[in-house]
Amino acid sequence: MKMFDAGVTAPKGFVAGGVKAAIKKGRDRKDLAIIFSEREANAAAVYTRNKVKAAPVLLTMENLAGGKARAVIANSGNANACTGAEGMARARRMVAAAAKALGVPETQVIVASTGVIGQHLNIEAVEAAAPALAKGLSKDGGADARDAIMTTDTIPKQAACEFEVGGKKAVIGAICKGSGMIHPNMGTMLCFIATDCAVSAAVLKQALGSCVERSFNRVTVDGDTSTNDMAAIMANGLAGNAEISGPGADYDAFEAALLAVLVELAKLIAKDGEGATKLIECAVTGAKDEDTAAGLAKAVVGSSLVKAAFFGADANWGRILCAMGYSGCEFDPAAVSVGFSSAAGSLKVCDAGQAIDFSEELAKKVLGEGEIRVDVVIAGKGEGRAAAWGCDLTYDYVKINGDYRT
Amino acid sequence: MKMFDAGVTAPKGFVAGGVKAAIKKGRDRKDLAIIFSEREANAAAVYTRNKVKAAPVLLTMENLAGGKARAVIANSGNANACTGAEGMARARRMVAAAAKALGVPETQVIVASTGVIGQHLNIEAVEAAAPALAKGLSKDGGADARDAIMTTDTIPKQAACEFEVGGKKAVIGAICKGSGMIHPNMGTMLCFIATDCAVSAAVLKQALGSCVERSFNRVTVDGDTSTNDMAAIMANGLAGNAEISGPGADYDAFEAALLAVLVELAKLIAKDGEGATKLIECAVTGAKDEDTAAGLAKAVVGSSLVKAAFFGADANWGRILCAMGYSGCEFDPAAVSVGFSSAAGSLKVCDAGQAIDFSEELAKKVLGEGEIRVDVVIAGKGEGRAAAWGCDLTYDYVKINGDYRT
Repeated sequence: MKMFDAGVTAPKGFVAGGVKAAIKKGRDRKDLAIIFSEREANAAAVYTRNKVKAAPVLLTMENLAGGKARAVIANSGNANACTGAEGMARARRMVAAAAKALGVPETQVIVASTGVIGQHLNIEAVEAAAPALAKGLSKDGGADARDAIMTTDTIPKQAACEFEVGGKKAVIGAICKGSGMIHPNMGTMLCFIATDCAVSAAVLKQALGSCVERSFNRVTVDGDTSTNDMAAIMANGLAGNAEISGPGADYDAFEAALLAVLVELAKLIAKDGEGATKLIECAVTGAKDEDTAAGLAKAVVGSSLVKAAFFGADANWGRILCAMGYSGCEFDPAAVSVGFSSAAGSLKVCDAGQAIDFSEELAKKVLGEGEIRVDVVIAGKGEGRAAAWGCDLTYDYVKINGDYRT
Repeated sequence: MKMFDAGVTAPKGFVAGGVKAAIKKGRDRKDLAIIFSEREANAAAVYTRNKVKAAPVLLTMENLAGGKARAVIANSGNANACTGAEGMARARRMVAAAAKALGVPETQVIVASTGVIGQHLNIEAVEAAAPALAKGLSKDGGADARDAIMTTDTIPKQAACEFEVGGKKAVIGAICKGSGMIHPNMGTMLCFIATDCAVSAAVLKQALGSCVERSFNRVTVDGDTSTNDMAAIMANGLAGNAEISGPGADYDAFEAALLAVLVELAKLIAKDGEGATKLIECAVTGAKDEDTAAGLAKAVVGSSLVKAAFFGADANWGRILCAMGYSGCEFDPAAVSVGFSSAAGSLKVCDAGQAIDFSEELAKKVLGEGEIRVDVVIAGKGEGRAAAWGCDLTYDYVKINGDYRT
């Protein structure tokens, strides 16, 4: 298994593109993307758990019921959420525009939107741009598609992995957008994954759910999902392996590669938190099970007070214990030790749930780096371990979110 | 029932004081408070639900098991949390210092601390200051006690209410500290309430629990409680009413007065959110029950994206629906309308879950005020209603919390 820097067109048989469709007035950026599989692909997706679901989410759920897809069409600049029946009609027109331009069935189009909520999507702009966009799709266009779905993202996000499965070489490539912040998923997370590995639709769904849980859902606080979140995968089988339709070595190889790609993207999301200057990884070991470890790690990286302390390079480990304490997870506070590490070194700051002497000078140096790891060890027999990712809370977060809509 | 501006010494038979005990090096502020009831009082308290409980919280739970108290001793500058057996020993010494100086049993002393976590309390400073503090208690000293428990609070917080019960005039007076922010309770909330109303310990406990749920717990996101939170009440019976020991008109009068005092304090906490410039009240009506209404209202005032939008006076109602959507509460998104009001006017911004036209100019004016109300109406037959309070998210929040410990 080998990670490499590429996007959604890395696997065989996928092309893509992104253009400026002028969907939002005055926003001079690429804002419309299409990803296309040259062959019918098995497909699956996971969606926001928010009770308020945007029209494109509802429509994609409908279209993917058959487990097949040929294309994704996605826009930034408008979420098409809280837009009622008219919003659904426009999402259908968006699907129709892609289907027509690509010559594929409407039911095999995945549609996604991200941007401001509660305003009607400029569907005419989408319809005007779709034909030329569809005509210009290419391998190189993966980068344009990646850029076209960005909103407040400051870094483009892609990851790819090559792996062996059933004696064949297969590739997974993906792009995503999103910023991991206080309620990370509230800033919409979109992820589109393509693979040439042959995988049944049912297995795709299972693997995607399992990997999203251990990647994107570890940069989030449970339940804090936006109206538009979606991660979708298409598998076109061009790698030539025997289709993976159940458990076994092939499944394990595929899932490991998918997880590696999604964890890489999850870290990029956390690092690109709105206004963030630091990537924080919290690794918990010794919890009674993985869910408990994940719950504790997420509470730590999700705490605004912890985040603000990291911004200030302040070794305020008391806030870490406090966040663990309100996480709702079972653990023994008196068994907890906490350490920090980064490129500048490492140190322990709390043992057996209590203060220990440490060098404030070294702490400042360790916490002054751009990537910091918090190691929480719970002494005892528990074997649950998990990591979660977040970022610091900065002045710029407030600035970015104080006047986003107007 | 009449509210008035006074604190914990407003009812008969209570005196208090606060002094500079130099508990935290270099912090030139009042940091040690005593509240004293001239007569043995019935007492009750509610405590943080955090799994990590500070030593003074554990000790007060132990002391109040008998339902009687004579005094409160509380400090700021150090939380005495995550301090192990030595922390518990110091909390006991703090109780002993108060008991000795006041000539009351140690088991009738309520003890509380707030400040930095994980450092040992300077107990010698407490012991040195307690005797003179106890000697100087007075009615006027209520203001000093109020000031001595403040940490990042920028406004002192007190409230009092006079009411009739069983033909007698009774008074409730209270002080508190705390800032309502993203995870509001993580900044410790302490509240000390005194009343001359005669109430049994069991009824005190019930009334306090019920009123805290509808006041302080409505400035918080569920479960996000600090290591040190506590609200304690003493009732010394000097009003001369027949002791309230169960349901009835007397109980109702007492509970209404207590609720009014605590809601007043809760709003002060929300308004004084760290770095806050605006008080946000979210009132939900038409939910299926009160719990649902409260859950929705709290999700709205607890959303960092909503808070940041209020800072920017941005009428971003989509974020309000999004927060409701991830609250975990049952409601029909298509039945929701949202309005804003303040001293500058009012306007509706969303109807039937969808965008409606509104004046951006008026919205800016309404949201430019210091106190803003969000009205969420769910159309239908539900009779659940509740309010929750919060504040905006500002640059200063980050500044305050970025380097609090060092």
